[in-house]
Amino acid sequence: MIEQRLECLRAEMTRRGVDAVAVVPSANLFYLTGVQMHVSERVTLLVVTRDAAHLIVPALEAPRVEARARVPLTLHAWSDAEWVKAGWASLAQHCALDGKHIALDYYSVRALEWTQLQAAARGAQFSDASPLFDTLRMVKDAAEVDAMRRAARTLETSLDALLNEVRVGKTEQELAARWQWLMFEHGADGIPEAPIVASGSNSALPHTTATAREIQNGDLVIFDGWCAVDGYYGDITRTFAVGAITDELKHIYDLTRRANEAGRAAAKPGAQCQDVDRAARKIIADAGYGEFFVHRTGHGLGLDVHEAPNMVEGDTRVLAPGNTFTVEPGIYLAGKGGVRIEDDVVVTQDGSECLMLSTRELRTL
Amino acid sequence: MIEQRLECLRAEMTRRGVDAVAVVPSANLFYLTGVQMHVSERVTLLVVTRDAAHLIVPALEAPRVEARARVPLTLHAWSDAEWVKAGWASLAQHCALDGKHIALDYYSVRALEWTQLQAAARGAQFSDASPLFDTLRMVKDAAEVDAMRRAARTLETSLDALLNEVRVGKTEQELAARWQWLMFEHGADGIPEAPIVASGSNSALPHTTATAREIQNGDLVIFDGWCAVDGYYGDITRTFAVGAITDELKHIYDLTRRANEAGRAAAKPGAQCQDVDRAARKIIADAGYGEFFVHRTGHGLGLDVHEAPNMVEGDTRVLAPGNTFTVEPGIYLAGKGGVRIEDDVVVTQDGSECLMLSTRELRTL
Repeated sequence: MIEQRLECLRAEMTRRGVDAVAVVPSANLFYLTGVQMHVSERVTLLVVTRDAAHLIVPALEAPRVEARARVPLTLHAWSDAEWVKAGWASLAQHCALDGKHIALDYYSVRALEWTQLQAAARGAQFSDASPLFDTLRMVKDAAEVDAMRRAARTLETSLDALLNEVRVGKTEQELAARWQWLMFEHGADGIPEAPIVASGSNSALPHTTATAREIQNGDLVIFDGWCAVDGYYGDITRTFAVGAITDELKHIYDLTRRANEAGRAAAKPGAQCQDVDRAARKIIADAGYGEFFVHRTGHGLGLDVHEAPNMVEGDTRVLAPGNTFTVEPGIYLAGKGGVRIEDDVVVTQDGSECLMLSTRELRTL
Repeated sequence: MIEQRLECLRAEMTRRGVDAVAVVPSANLFYLTGVQMHVSERVTLLVVTRDAAHLIVPALEAPRVEARARVPLTLHAWSDAEWVKAGWASLAQHCALDGKHIALDYYSVRALEWTQLQAAARGAQFSDASPLFDTLRMVKDAAEVDAMRRAARTLETSLDALLNEVRVGKTEQELAARWQWLMFEHGADGIPEAPIVASGSNSALPHTTATAREIQNGDLVIFDGWCAVDGYYGDITRTFAVGAITDELKHIYDLTRRANEAGRAAAKPGAQCQDVDRAARKIIADAGYGEFFVHRTGHGLGLDVHEAPNMVEGDTRVLAPGNTFTVEPGIYLAGKGGVRIEDDVVVTQDGSECLMLSTRELRTL
């Protein structure tokens, strides 16, 4: 199946007049080759041309690449003693890049790799390869959706297990590390990334990380976690009350729950991405809380936790079956608390399917 | 203290004729501002000029930046509805970049940010800011070394605790996830990254990740973990035998142990970085195993797990007190097993101090 992806990429390259695509370790590298690698100071660069796929790679990564690559790759390995110039010299013997049109993955290729590529490809024209990858990756097939469904299940069962352990006095960090462990036990790939646990006033910071703050009575607590199964991500957020909370917090919870429902209802073939945002945002804005919903309604989800498209005003891409994304409205009241409720959805032939099964009603711990 | 760093940066900028330095979320951003952020599809860019520090930042990150920044920053926040062009428009009103000499952090600034910067700074000249940051960050003060010493202690006490749980039949992934948890319990910042556990034939892959392979009798098992305390990293590797191992594996263990010792002994003021590599490599090469030591002897360590300088042939930088780096020779025999023994050292006035206290003698589990 991965070989078909290279064929699809080349069809897009032909259509757009692109001679070569350059990718560093990222979800795009995994998507095209089946190899998971991390960006580091050691340059690794995949160059896909119309008829070959070359990988400049640190020699000490080469055995792993050879063991795991699921497409034919010509390796240009370089040792720590030679450093990366040896990789470029080897590539030059197999592949002429001067004057070509090269599309770079703008979201992962660094100035480090780009300046080296500029030196190796004199007179080349460069452009952003992201639209090309977005086209390929935005439509998931049944196997990809199935992996995402299993990731959603891992998140929900691990969160259920975690909730049994939530007590006043536990810190956000303890709970986050514990949830991470439970995701692992419930089937996540490798070792998952640390989730967000944000309590009380911290829950009003939409992009915080877990801190040493202890859970207190009267808190709202946001649990926002993501993990992959077979490489594909699920991403969930649920918000809980600890003991009795104020009426204002109950009110913003109810608004957010309704906004989530409206956003999901707007997800269907033919709708634009911004329609999902508008539907969710209208509920919150009409109730006078628009200024406290400070982020987009959702983001694409798949091999990356954040990928195309965006559920945001201005994203006019038209939804089609196989598109997968989050719906996650939130309301954040500084100093008081915040709510976010996030589900993953997949667009179907006649609407959408929500991958999450757990309740969105307010639960008190 | 962080304000002094900005002053030192500006002194380097003046010396090198640099008008502005551009940094995206990275250790360099944390070093200069005290704010830890992650690179994402939402552009965040710090621009340090001779007299100000500007931050283009997603609006939903702004509250956290305001709460945690330890230097004065002029924020140019942009919302999901406006996207990043609003941040650039705000910056343009405060800061003229046309025709300037702008140094970029080549190791973190992506094509995404660089192309936006090129559009915002017409006729600007660009260069690599890494040498400038290396100069500042390579010399640690006493507080930085103390944090690294505590990180080394966290690694050693958590690894000791883990060893009590190693059994034949446990998987590499179970042990890696468990060690990660123990690092957290033993005082690591936030939630540490997943360590490497590589057993049997996997131990011959120097850059593998933990797999579902079960520990077996006769294995060598490499444990390579890193974590931060107060932002500064320790990085340790120890290799253990499970039951009886072959004489060949015992031999490469002994060679690696002696190479580690020779490398550490070569670490002193006035030596070049490559001298540390040569000293360690000589032991292994003289015994006929040179081709199986496939990586540099070590790397700089501090706010990044890998930073300047490199203990490798060709790195002629001269060691000085306060330099901190790893010494981690290894021998990898495909299909049989591998050994790596890694310590962290700090160069002192008259030699070096090893931050690790645990034995390097072969231990059998």
